[in-house]
Amino acid sequence: MTKIAVVGLGNMGRPMSLNMAKAGHEVIGWDLSPAAREAFTKDGGRVGNGLEAVLDSADFLMTMVPAGPQVRSAYLDDGGILSHASKDTLLIDSSTIDVETSRAVNQAATAAGYQMVDAPVSGAVPAAEAATLTFMVGGTKEAFDRAKPILEAMGKNIIHAGPAGTGQAAKICNNMVAGTNMAVLCESFVLGQKLGLDPQVIFDVISKSSGQSWALNSYCPVPGLVSTAPSNQNYKAGFAARLMTKDMTLAQQAAQTAGVATPLAAQARAMYQMMVNSGAGDKDFSAIYEMLAEDRSS
Amino acid sequence: MTKIAVVGLGNMGRPMSLNMAKAGHEVIGWDLSPAAREAFTKDGGRVGNGLEAVLDSADFLMTMVPAGPQVRSAYLDDGGILSHASKDTLLIDSSTIDVETSRAVNQAATAAGYQMVDAPVSGAVPAAEAATLTFMVGGTKEAFDRAKPILEAMGKNIIHAGPAGTGQAAKICNNMVAGTNMAVLCESFVLGQKLGLDPQVIFDVISKSSGQSWALNSYCPVPGLVSTAPSNQNYKAGFAARLMTKDMTLAQQAAQTAGVATPLAAQARAMYQMMVNSGAGDKDFSAIYEMLAEDRSS
Amino acid sequence: MTKIAVVGLGNMGRPMSLNMAKAGHEVIGWDLSPAAREAFTKDGGRVGNGLEAVLDSADFLMTMVPAGPQVRSAYLDDGGILSHASKDTLLIDSSTIDVETSRAVNQAATAAGYQMVDAPVSGAVPAAEAATLTFMVGGTKEAFDRAKPILEAMGKNIIHAGPAGTGQAAKICNNMVAGTNMAVLCESFVLGQKLGLDPQVIFDVISKSSGQSWALNSYCPVPGLVSTAPSNQNYKAGFAARLMTKDMTLAQQAAQTAGVATPLAAQARAMYQMMVNSGAGDKDFSAIYEMLAEDRSS
Amino acid sequence: MTKIAVVGLGNMGRPMSLNMAKAGHEVIGWDLSPAAREAFTKDGGRVGNGLEAVLDSADFLMTMVPAGPQVRSAYLDDGGILSHASKDTLLIDSSTIDVETSRAVNQAATAAGYQMVDAPVSGAVPAAEAATLTFMVGGTKEAFDRAKPILEAMGKNIIHAGPAGTGQAAKICNNMVAGTNMAVLCESFVLGQKLGLDPQVIFDVISKSSGQSWALNSYCPVPGLVSTAPSNQNYKAGFAARLMTKDMTLAQQAAQTAGVATPLAAQARAMYQMMVNSGAGDKDFSAIYEMLAEDRSS
Repeated sequence: MTKIAVVGLGNMGRPMSLNMAKAGHEVIGWDLSPAAREAFTKDGGRVGNGLEAVLDSADFLMTMVPAGPQVRSAYLDDGGILSHASKDTLLIDSSTIDVETSRAVNQAATAAGYQMVDAPVSGAVPAAEAATLTFMVGGTKEAFDRAKPILEAMGKNIIHAGPAGTGQAAKICNNMVAGTNMAVLCESFVLGQKLGLDPQVIFDVISKSSGQSWALNSYCPVPGLVSTAPSNQNYKAGFAARLMTKDMTLAQQAAQTAGVATPLAAQARAMYQMMVNSGAGDKDFSAIYEMLAEDRSS
Repeated sequence: MTKIAVVGLGNMGRPMSLNMAKAGHEVIGWDLSPAAREAFTKDGGRVGNGLEAVLDSADFLMTMVPAGPQVRSAYLDDGGILSHASKDTLLIDSSTIDVETSRAVNQAATAAGYQMVDAPVSGAVPAAEAATLTFMVGGTKEAFDRAKPILEAMGKNIIHAGPAGTGQAAKICNNMVAGTNMAVLCESFVLGQKLGLDPQVIFDVISKSSGQSWALNSYCPVPGLVSTAPSNQNYKAGFAARLMTKDMTLAQQAAQTAGVATPLAAQARAMYQMMVNSGAGDKDFSAIYEMLAEDRSS
Repeated sequence: MTKIAVVGLGNMGRPMSLNMAKAGHEVIGWDLSPAAREAFTKDGGRVGNGLEAVLDSADFLMTMVPAGPQVRSAYLDDGGILSHASKDTLLIDSSTIDVETSRAVNQAATAAGYQMVDAPVSGAVPAAEAATLTFMVGGTKEAFDRAKPILEAMGKNIIHAGPAGTGQAAKICNNMVAGTNMAVLCESFVLGQKLGLDPQVIFDVISKSSGQSWALNSYCPVPGLVSTAPSNQNYKAGFAARLMTKDMTLAQQAAQTAGVATPLAAQARAMYQMMVNSGAGDKDFSAIYEMLAEDRSS
Repeated sequence: MTKIAVVGLGNMGRPMSLNMAKAGHEVIGWDLSPAAREAFTKDGGRVGNGLEAVLDSADFLMTMVPAGPQVRSAYLDDGGILSHASKDTLLIDSSTIDVETSRAVNQAATAAGYQMVDAPVSGAVPAAEAATLTFMVGGTKEAFDRAKPILEAMGKNIIHAGPAGTGQAAKICNNMVAGTNMAVLCESFVLGQKLGLDPQVIFDVISKSSGQSWALNSYCPVPGLVSTAPSNQNYKAGFAARLMTKDMTLAQQAAQTAGVATPLAAQARAMYQMMVNSGAGDKDFSAIYEMLAEDRSS
C-alpha cells in the first residue's frame, strides 16, 4: 500500500486527499489550522500528529497551500519538509504559485537529493471533488512518471509540461488567455446589445465565427444562453474573480521577470483587480460582465 | 430569370458576382474603376454601360465597396442608386462599414420606398471564391427573406441579425473579440516559451482548457502547430492585419458613439495599428505574434 | 460699431456673448431652445427674431453648439447659416467637435466664398464668465487676424494653431494628455497610500520631480493638498468627466481616422467612460481618483 | 572624521563615493567586480581589502547595487553586511529595489539592532557627478536625521518619505507617473502632426494648458523644441528606457502585491518593455516617441 502525506487541507486539498484515499492509498494529512484538520477528520480523513509524523515513511508528499511564501516556508523552513522527509519521498507541489519560487524550491529539493514536481491544477472545487482535475506537471520525466499514478486518483488529464516550473508556467499561460478572452467577450456583449442585437444572436454569430472561445461556449457571461454557465446561477463561482486576479497577477510577475510585453493581459489583470476591489471578488470571473454593462450615465 | 446589379467589382465583389452568375442569375456589374471593370470582363463577367443602365429593371442591387463614405455616396449622391433604381429593386449592401452610416443609408432608402438590408460578410477572398461566406444580415424579416436566396449563391451561413444596422453590428462584435483573442494568445505563446515551455505543450494545454479559442484551433499564430493556419505560410493572409485594424476601428467608433467602455478592444486596436504602421499590414493578423516576440534587448 | 451674431446660447455661449456685449459690440443671439433664448434675455442679452434676422448685416457670426452634427446642420442645412449670411460675415465656430466635420464645414464655407475659423476654447464656465478663455484657432492668417479682436473680448490667450481644423486638433491633443496625466496620477496616489506614504509626501515628491504636471499642481485629485482644486469642493466641476470623455473620444476618432496608435489615450478614454457609466459624469474629471481608490475587496 | 563604507562602485556608486570624499569624509569602497574596484581607484578612490575590512569601524555604510536580490544578499548572506558591521554603523541602501525586499531587509537589520534607511535617488549619472541628486528616504526620524548630513554631500534634495520602504515607494510612485506622462505626450505629438499641427504649436499650446508636465518642459520628446532635452542629442540618455522599464516594473510589482489597479501604468510598462525589446533600451525613455511615430503603413 502506498503512503501519501498531504500538507494543506483547505477547500481543494481536502477533497483531493479524500479521492486519493478512495483510490486505495493510505493518506495522512496535516494543516497548520486546527479548523482545517478538524474538517478533514469529520469528512473521514486521517490527520497525523504534526508534520514530522505525517512525513514518516511516506512514499509521496503533496502540498496544496495558498501562495509562494507558504510553499517556500513549508519546504525550506527549519523543521520543514526538507528537514523531515525521506529522500525516497516524491515531492509534489500542487499549489498555484509564482514560477520563480517554484523553481527555487525545486532546485533546493533537488540539491538535497529529492525528486520533486510542480503540479498545479485547473478546475475548481467541484472538479476536485469529482476527481476530474487537470494537472500540469513540471519536472523530470522520471519524476513525472512516478507522480502520474497518484495524480490520476484526483484528475483525468495529467500533462507533462516540461522541466521544473513549467507546470506553473503552463497554468498561468492558459489562465491569462482565459481571463482576457472572457473580458473582451463581455465588452462585445455590452456593445452588441447597445447596437440593438439580441444576446442570442450575438451568441449564435460568435460561437460559429472567428470569435469563438471556451469562455463563450462554456462560461457564457450573459445569463440565459448556456444553461450550465455560472451566469445562470447569479455568477456563483465557478472560478472566482479573486482567483483569476491571483493567476493573472502571477502571469504578470512572470512576464515582468522574463522581460515580456503583455499589454492585453496587463490590462485585463487591472480590470479583474477593479472588480475585486468593487467587492465582487467572490463571484465567478464572468461577472466582469456586470461591471462593464453598468450604465447609470443619465 | 432574376436580374442582379452589382456595384463594386474589387477582390471580393468580383468572385461574389461570378458565383451569382454561376447560380443561374443574370448579373450585370459596375465599378468606377476601369481596371476593375476590365478584370471582371476578363473573368467572364458582364459589365453594364454606367450605373443607370446597370440598375435598369434589376430585381436586386448589391454594393460591395470599401467604406462608409463610398456607400453613402453610391446610394445618396445625385445620380446615385436611389436616383435610378426601381422601388421594386431590393437593395443589399455587403460592404463592411460603420453602423451609423449603415443605419442612415437604410433610413434614407426606406423613406424613399425601398427595402434594404446590410449584409456584411465574414470570410476573405478564398471564401468569396468558394461561395462559403457567412452573411450577417440587418433589416426587416421580409427584406431578409427576399435577400436570402440570392445570398445563398455566395455563402453557406445566412444569419438574420435583427433590424437595419445589426448586420454590421454583429460583424464588428465578432471581429473585436477575434482580434483581441488572437493578440493575447500571442502574448501567452511568447511568455510561455520564455518560461521554458515547448509551443506544442502550450497548444496542447490551452486547446483543452479554459483558454481555448478559434484563434488557437484555426489560426494558431505559432508556425508548426496547425497545418492550415496562415502562420504556416509565412503569415500570408488569411485575414490581413490591415482589415482587422479597419474592423476593430469600426467597433471602437460604434462603442464611442454608444457610450460603451471597451478597454481591451481599444487596446487591441492600438496594437494592430502599430503592426500596420510597422509595415506588416498585409500579413495575416496572427503575425502580431512576430511583433510581440521580437527581442533584441541585449 | 461691430455687429456680432451668435448661434448657441447655452452655458458657454451665454456668458461669452455677454462679454462681447460688455466690450462694446452689438451682439444678437439665437438658439433653437426657447428656454435658452429666455435665459439670455433675462441676463440682459438681445435675442433676434430667427436665424435670418440675426445674421442680417452681421460682421461676425459665432456658433457654440454641442457637437459635430449640430455644427454641420447649423451651417449647411437649407435655411442654415450659409443660406443667409453675407459673404462679408466672418464665421467663427467655437464648438468643440471632431476634426473631420470641422474641416468639411470650413471647406464648404470657403467654397461658398466665406472666411471661417474653428476656434474651440479651453477653460470651462467660470473662465467663460471671467473672459479668461484660451482660444485655439484654425484657419488662414487673414481670417485669424480678423477674428482675434473679437475673441479677445472673451479670452486672454488667442493662439493661431494653423490651417482649418487645427484649432480642434490642438484642443484634443492637449486634452487627451490632460486626461491621461490625471488618471495615472490618481493610480499613483492610490498606490502610494497603500504603500504607507502620506498624500502630502507624494505631492511634495512628485511636484518637484519628473512626474510633475498641471494635473498635480492645479487639479490635485486628492483633497487637502491644493486648496483651489475641485477635489476640495467634493469634486464639483471644474471640467466634468462627461466633457473629458467627449474630448478624449474626439481624440480617438481623429487618431483612428489618421491611422495613429494611441494605446494610453485609448485606455484612458475607456476609464473615463466607465466613470461616466458609473453615474459620476457630472463630477470633475479628477474624481476618477474615487473610482481607482475604491476598495471593498475584503 | 566620519568613516563611510560603500558597497557597489558602479556608474552611480563611484561618483557618489567620490563626492562624499570630496566633502571631507573618509570613504572606503568595495565591489565584487575587480573592474569596478580598479575604476574607482583610478578615479582617486580608496578600495578596501574585502567587505569585512571595509566595514571595520565605519560610521556609515552605503549600498548601491542593481536590484533586490543583490541587496538581500549583500546584507543577509553569511559573511554579509549584518555579519560584520558594528551595531553603531548606520546602514543606508541607495539602490532602487522592490518595496517588499526593502522592508524585509530593513526589518532584519532592525531586529539585529541596526538603524537602517532606504534612500533611493532620482537623477542619473550627471546628477550623481554634480552632487545634485534627490534622495527619498524611508526609515525612522532618528535614522533619517543621522543619514541626512551624509546624503547632503551627494544631493540637494533630501526628503523624509516616512517609515522603512517608503523611500522606494516614493520613487516608483513618481516614476510610474513620469513614464506614463511621457508616453501619452508622444502619442499626442504624433497625432497632432498627422492632423497638420506644427510641433512648436503643440508645444506652445500644451505647455500653457492642462496637459503641461515636466515631460514636456524638460524632456520634450520631439527634437528642436527644448534645447537641453535628450531628444536634441539623438535621445542619448538622460534616463534610459531600460531603467524606466525597471522602475515601472517595480511599481507594477508593488501594485500587484498591494491589490491596486493601475491600468495606465500597467499599459505604459508594456510599452517601454516593447521599446527595450526592439533594441532601443539604452536610449532615453523619451525615444518612445520614435516607436509611436513609426509609419511604414503604405
